[in-house]
Amino acid sequence: MLNTRSILVTGSNRGIGLEFIRQLSEKSNRPEWIFATCRDPEGPRAQELRNLAAKHQGIEIIQLEVNDPSSILAAAAKVTEHLQGAGLNLLINNAGILRPSTLESETPEVMTEVYKNNVIGPMMVTQAFLPLLRKASQESPQKGMSCSKAAIVNMSSEGGSIANLLIWHVGHFINYRCSKAALNMLTRCQALELAEDEILCIALHPGWVQTDMGGSVGQAPMTVDASVQAILNTLGHLSEKDNGTFVNWEGTVVPW
Amino acid sequence: MLNTRSILVTGSNRGIGLEFIRQLSEKSNRPEWIFATCRDPEGPRAQELRNLAAKHQGIEIIQLEVNDPSSILAAAAKVTEHLQGAGLNLLINNAGILRPSTLESETPEVMTEVYKNNVIGPMMVTQAFLPLLRKASQESPQKGMSCSKAAIVNMSSEGGSIANLLIWHVGHFINYRCSKAALNMLTRCQALELAEDEILCIALHPGWVQTDMGGSVGQAPMTVDASVQAILNTLGHLSEKDNGTFVNWEGTVVPW
Repeated sequence: MLNTRSILVTGSNRGIGLEFIRQLSEKSNRPEWIFATCRDPEGPRAQELRNLAAKHQGIEIIQLEVNDPSSILAAAAKVTEHLQGAGLNLLINNAGILRPSTLESETPEVMTEVYKNNVIGPMMVTQAFLPLLRKASQESPQKGMSCSKAAIVNMSSEGGSIANLLIWHVGHFINYRCSKAALNMLTRCQALELAEDEILCIALHPGWVQTDMGGSVGQAPMTVDASVQAILNTLGHLSEKDNGTFVNWEGTVVPW
Repeated sequence: MLNTRSILVTGSNRGIGLEFIRQLSEKSNRPEWIFATCRDPEGPRAQELRNLAAKHQGIEIIQLEVNDPSSILAAAAKVTEHLQGAGLNLLINNAGILRPSTLESETPEVMTEVYKNNVIGPMMVTQAFLPLLRKASQESPQKGMSCSKAAIVNMSSEGGSIANLLIWHVGHFINYRCSKAALNMLTRCQALELAEDEILCIALHPGWVQTDMGGSVGQAPMTVDASVQAILNTLGHLSEKDNGTFVNWEGTVVPW
């Protein structure tokens, strides 16, 4: 069972990110610190997140734009301050975008924008929070690896599985698929490099979920509530044998 | 046996690209048109290519910067003019870069630069030359798919195999690995989309070769001559059953 003292979720004002914050804050063993980051905490699109934070103690809303290195560093400084010497157990790189496209209509501008958000963003966020993740790992009394101790979860997609190409019949989304394949590679590299720090690294496919993004590409079959419930259950079961793998919401391995 | 009327190789002033041009121009059944593109045909780094073109008839050196859409369109216009109504049989997206890095030293600027060169470049080049590839496919009397009829070969790397992560012990090269995983995804998408046009699409690992790039990361075991000989032999054997796969210089499948 997932049992973290501190957790950070990027892109937490909407969709799966917001639902993570909601379910985490309602858990019986809720984390002491829940850091909910988003691009514009004061804007209209963060209203639901602000409502949630007003209702539950321990939710800290923090400005973080994954495209902006200075914003990421400022967020890491604020989180460090909140934690008062403690580490960060679980980083969920959830923020991501998708742009409708076909093979022939895809543009360099959109390809670059999506890569920056979906790959370079998670890379920079991880770099900035690595000292806090290492601290959590070092100070944990637990043996081995777990999401309760120290972990990075990169929200990927089976749409980025080169072998499976989920919902190709629905759309090409070259920008998105290429970015998620690259994110899976980043995850494997992080897993190899951070194994000696006992930081678990996972690429996760949340399912085709009824969010703004999931709905924009067709009739998504899964509710965001069911997806996040299953994911939180799965995160509670992951250990070092899962390090560097690509799993779906239920913990089933997805081929690269 | 590879038997194309026309072929285009990007990044053909050095390394594997230059060796392609050399071996193609010395073949007994040499292509009628060999388009050798590079960033700066007049510059000192294209001297060897210019020497080769002076020695052999039928090598057309064409300026093409894979990062620059207008350069790509101008190159496609020139090639169309040379072909005088014929199609382009084989496009080899060979130009690519690699920047030394570690997980923690990787920067957004380098990640973006490498993605633009290694993924967005091949995507744009393919878009621009697609009408000529379609023409070659339509006008070919051959049944099925082959590199002699109409094909796109994306030069990838086993370093971009998420499953294998070739030479991880030698270096992280996150920028390169992520870009090649994304290029493999692009190849799969191109293969699915262009199958109805009977254009064969392949991601190819040339081996760890003694080029400037290969040598920059360690003691590469294979000569560029041996690699390109094997690749040209392999290209001659590929057919529709290989469409959308990732193979090495000898034609052996590499896992994603």
